[in-house]
Amino acid sequence: METTLRDLGTVAGAPASGDGVREIVGVLGGMGPAATADFFAKLVRATPARVDQDHLRTIIWSDPTIPDRTAALLSGGTDPTPWLLAGARMLRAAGAGVIAVPCNTAHAFLPSVQADVGVPFVHMIEETVLHIRSRLPRVRRVGLLSTTGTQASALYDEALRRHGLEPVVPQAAAQSRVMAGIARVKAGVVDERTAWLVASAALELIDAGAETLVAGCTELPMALEATEFDVPVIDPTQVLAEAVVAAVGRPHAA
Amino acid sequence: METTLRDLGTVAGAPASGDGVREIVGVLGGMGPAATADFFAKLVRATPARVDQDHLRTIIWSDPTIPDRTAALLSGGTDPTPWLLAGARMLRAAGAGVIAVPCNTAHAFLPSVQADVGVPFVHMIEETVLHIRSRLPRVRRVGLLSTTGTQASALYDEALRRHGLEPVVPQAAAQSRVMAGIARVKAGVVDERTAWLVASAALELIDAGAETLVAGCTELPMALEATEFDVPVIDPTQVLAEAVVAAVGRPHAA
Repeated sequence: METTLRDLGTVAGAPASGDGVREIVGVLGGMGPAATADFFAKLVRATPARVDQDHLRTIIWSDPTIPDRTAALLSGGTDPTPWLLAGARMLRAAGAGVIAVPCNTAHAFLPSVQADVGVPFVHMIEETVLHIRSRLPRVRRVGLLSTTGTQASALYDEALRRHGLEPVVPQAAAQSRVMAGIARVKAGVVDERTAWLVASAALELIDAGAETLVAGCTELPMALEATEFDVPVIDPTQVLAEAVVAAVGRPHAA
Repeated sequence: METTLRDLGTVAGAPASGDGVREIVGVLGGMGPAATADFFAKLVRATPARVDQDHLRTIIWSDPTIPDRTAALLSGGTDPTPWLLAGARMLRAAGAGVIAVPCNTAHAFLPSVQADVGVPFVHMIEETVLHIRSRLPRVRRVGLLSTTGTQASALYDEALRRHGLEPVVPQAAAQSRVMAGIARVKAGVVDERTAWLVASAALELIDAGAETLVAGCTELPMALEATEFDVPVIDPTQVLAEAVVAAVGRPHAA
């Protein structure tokens, strides 16, 4: 067997940072790849660091060929689980001590993957709901923008209700616009029409009583980057980045 | 042995895209991590794609604990080669068929790494010089903004002269400002002062006859994002992204 990256600090005689080696962060991504790049940039910015060596060792497996999650959940499309499993196993083999999956819909398939690989996952949806509870304690009605697959899986609905919050979801026509906006981001088209497709659905949720909005598909924060709303917009990609930094700890002062 | 990611298309019964499986791209990064995130975003944007599944499978090892490259080249700092070697071996083990290193200075250490792992590397510096020759055929004098380590290694100087081009490098005081600008980007501080530190050195190169500028450290394109010059500025991170896309081929039409 070759030396794992996890051992390298010891092998090469230098710890990773400060007075301890922090866990390697594994990222199971590519769903889509631009969203994974967005997550990685947010992870780097969320890490307190003065020099390169303060940052987290990170291994990213970006597999855009993972079959579409919404199609698998709704219309009998190929099950993405074998792809997610192979990716998570590779991340573990490379030394990842914690795994993040910057794709909301993929969380519907994670229980069996996590059980197989035995490495802790930072759960994007659970962390997002905890974030709302702690940062917006007076909010009760939460507007959910997500894929139709995430909607059908009820991942956010269940997590919100468990924490005493009430989900507000788009009507069918608005949900179609959200999916069209997500598809445009995946095709690299982030323009005013992309923003309108998503923002028009968001405004309907606010009209229906939503006191905050969750941009609950990793393409949506990119679609809404230049749009402002009267209620706070929660970015689960950013929440996940901060939760990963908290999970692996901060570098110690020398 | 577990199934490698490379085999997964076959194992799971679905090719990666179109009528063929393209090579997995390996990225040996973390030098610094923000530059690796910038490279990944540029790689995604440089890939012609309508849907996720058109994109490249990519594995990124971002190791910010790799010892400082300039310190190793100039002042007896720890040799980063063992870290680069372990990272490249992991990328190969995970199935990478081509490797990119989005750090100019690290290229001084790559010959022994490449010889060991036997996977083709896309050479950022060589590609950048070829890019200048093909896109700016009338240019002769090339202004080089880079780390003091890259300067000392003469990587760009040799590649430029081999192609009949003449390097123009900053004086000592200007070079100190370039290094200060790079350190600010690595600390996450990209502001007007960061831009000024680098741009003031760039203007001296133009005054000294440079007909184009190479932002030859992966932090520099980020420092110069909002600055305009009278000569073209070459971004080797972007050149590397385009060269990787060309190296692995494009998806075939269905």
